[in-house]
Amino acid sequence: MSFFRAAVDAMTGYIPGEQPKPGTPIIKLNTNENPYPPSPQAIEVLRNLDSEWLRRYPDPFAKDFCRAVSEALGVPADWVIVGNGSDELLNVIIRASAEGSDRKVVYPMPTYVLYRTLATMQPAEVVEIDYPADFQLPIDELVKAKGAVTFIASPNSPSGHLVPLADLRELAQQLTGILVIDEAYTDFAEYSALPLVREFENAIILRTLSKGYSLAGLRMGFGIAHPQLLAGLFKIKDSYNIDAIATAVGTAAMRDQAYKNACAEKVKKSRTKLMVELKNLGFTVLDSQANFVLATPPQGNAEQLYLALKTRGILVRYFKQFGLEDKLRITVGTDEQNQTLIEALVSLM
Amino acid sequence: MSFFRAAVDAMTGYIPGEQPKPGTPIIKLNTNENPYPPSPQAIEVLRNLDSEWLRRYPDPFAKDFCRAVSEALGVPADWVIVGNGSDELLNVIIRASAEGSDRKVVYPMPTYVLYRTLATMQPAEVVEIDYPADFQLPIDELVKAKGAVTFIASPNSPSGHLVPLADLRELAQQLTGILVIDEAYTDFAEYSALPLVREFENAIILRTLSKGYSLAGLRMGFGIAHPQLLAGLFKIKDSYNIDAIATAVGTAAMRDQAYKNACAEKVKKSRTKLMVELKNLGFTVLDSQANFVLATPPQGNAEQLYLALKTRGILVRYFKQFGLEDKLRITVGTDEQNQTLIEALVSLM
Repeated sequence: MSFFRAAVDAMTGYIPGEQPKPGTPIIKLNTNENPYPPSPQAIEVLRNLDSEWLRRYPDPFAKDFCRAVSEALGVPADWVIVGNGSDELLNVIIRASAEGSDRKVVYPMPTYVLYRTLATMQPAEVVEIDYPADFQLPIDELVKAKGAVTFIASPNSPSGHLVPLADLRELAQQLTGILVIDEAYTDFAEYSALPLVREFENAIILRTLSKGYSLAGLRMGFGIAHPQLLAGLFKIKDSYNIDAIATAVGTAAMRDQAYKNACAEKVKKSRTKLMVELKNLGFTVLDSQANFVLATPPQGNAEQLYLALKTRGILVRYFKQFGLEDKLRITVGTDEQNQTLIEALVSLM
Repeated sequence: MSFFRAAVDAMTGYIPGEQPKPGTPIIKLNTNENPYPPSPQAIEVLRNLDSEWLRRYPDPFAKDFCRAVSEALGVPADWVIVGNGSDELLNVIIRASAEGSDRKVVYPMPTYVLYRTLATMQPAEVVEIDYPADFQLPIDELVKAKGAVTFIASPNSPSGHLVPLADLRELAQQLTGILVIDEAYTDFAEYSALPLVREFENAIILRTLSKGYSLAGLRMGFGIAHPQLLAGLFKIKDSYNIDAIATAVGTAAMRDQAYKNACAEKVKKSRTKLMVELKNLGFTVLDSQANFVLATPPQGNAEQLYLALKTRGILVRYFKQFGLEDKLRITVGTDEQNQTLIEALVSLM
């Protein structure tokens, strides 16, 4: 007998973007980290943590953090579930709801690759529906696919587009399964779909502290939904999934909305500049509501540029995947980092 | 359609031991934390963390920590998998290997309750085999059950007994599925089964930093096994399951074996004293190789004592479960804490 289930033997794992160690002299524009440091208040909490918090098991529900979310976003604290990154919550949602061909996983493509990996390991049948060229949400096809769970990333990665609220509302209304609105990049967008969780018991909004809050290293994400939906997810998540340090640091970051918003404004300004400069170089660039842009070089030689940039110490993301082979996903860095990238591209093209 | 899979609707979640906030005036002898603080070197690392570690995604494999394990335990670094607590690794192992009635989960009873919870949610059929009164490992019955995965906690909870190495070796030899030797409490025991991972490709040793290293709040566990066994587990675990702070702090703690061993020696001395005192009060106490003891009060009124101790600010663990209803599991605290417990018991009995 193999040590593993057939679905596991057959699959390959998810391959995350390259992560050189801090200190490596590299401009890292490949995994959509925020270029600015986390809130000084969060760092202050880290510096002064009582070691008693390390010795003891953490609060299984990270209630301090839930209260901070409640205050920041105006949702009840018991509508919040906290995950070891929103990746863990994606995993928990699929484990709770999806199974074989009776309980499918549905999403439009292209989107976050991890949805497929998690469904494959469950295993649950996957229905992938291509976005049209204008990225209008294919509502009818999504509904017809009858997912036990349907994932919509908004802003979406790698396209960077934001799905209209009216479309998400219509989808939530027509679906009988769970609708996950993955708002990892919402801090850089014009609006959020948060109001929908009050209207629909089947809708859950996912957020992360990895992007807007500059805390990718902390592994903290959260979901907001009706307590009835959360009840099933709480059964599945590991009891002590959030460590005590992350809870304390994340709570301080969540309370410092002003700092987070100020950093996001800087990123949005840099995004506009970067898009203009890429277009000046002949790139086709999609409008982005996230902290990255998806750009097609004029010669379509995306892989070649990706490799050439890498040898110059600039990491961007290249997906060897249908529809994306001719594109680069570039994280918005500081103006200085973006300028270095543009100069490198000028010399390469 | 229900939002959830049938197995999830049918199950109840795992209920962890009570976790009052640090600062609450309580003697906490219910979840087997170490009564001594973590290594000063680990706390030093925490105090001086570069915030750049927070901003960026962590190393998906926590390689620094794997190297520290390699140096401390004399195993190759690529024989190590790191988890968000060893609970996460239990979860990953079951997800990778168990499924329905073809790929069962097998373990002797009583043991760590989470094995059952995780198997139920998979879902995978569970075969539970009772330990005899003398806690001899029921090897033949375990082998006959043909588990895709077989769990042996050693030292076991809540009994505290250590399984002889020869028994584990025989079991590993006869099983075709994975043998998980859960050594969460090994730092308080006379010997470890670590040599078996070199002898058997199907054996994996699980360790945690929650007990011996006083880092329950950090959520860090690890597994040691042949890379071929680990390959399947790496497919399943979340990419960024260990946060950057935990990796740095855990690495420092792992490097400070001397401190950990010194604390363990103190706990072992206190354990001996506590056992003597409980026996003097008429308790039946099993020999323990862990940082807790399983004790049966002379009147068998365990639940009543548990509740009475709780009103006096002393938490111990009571399991309302067949074979354990007349027993208390008591974490070994400092000598002072144990003395307060004994005095409370004297006044209650």
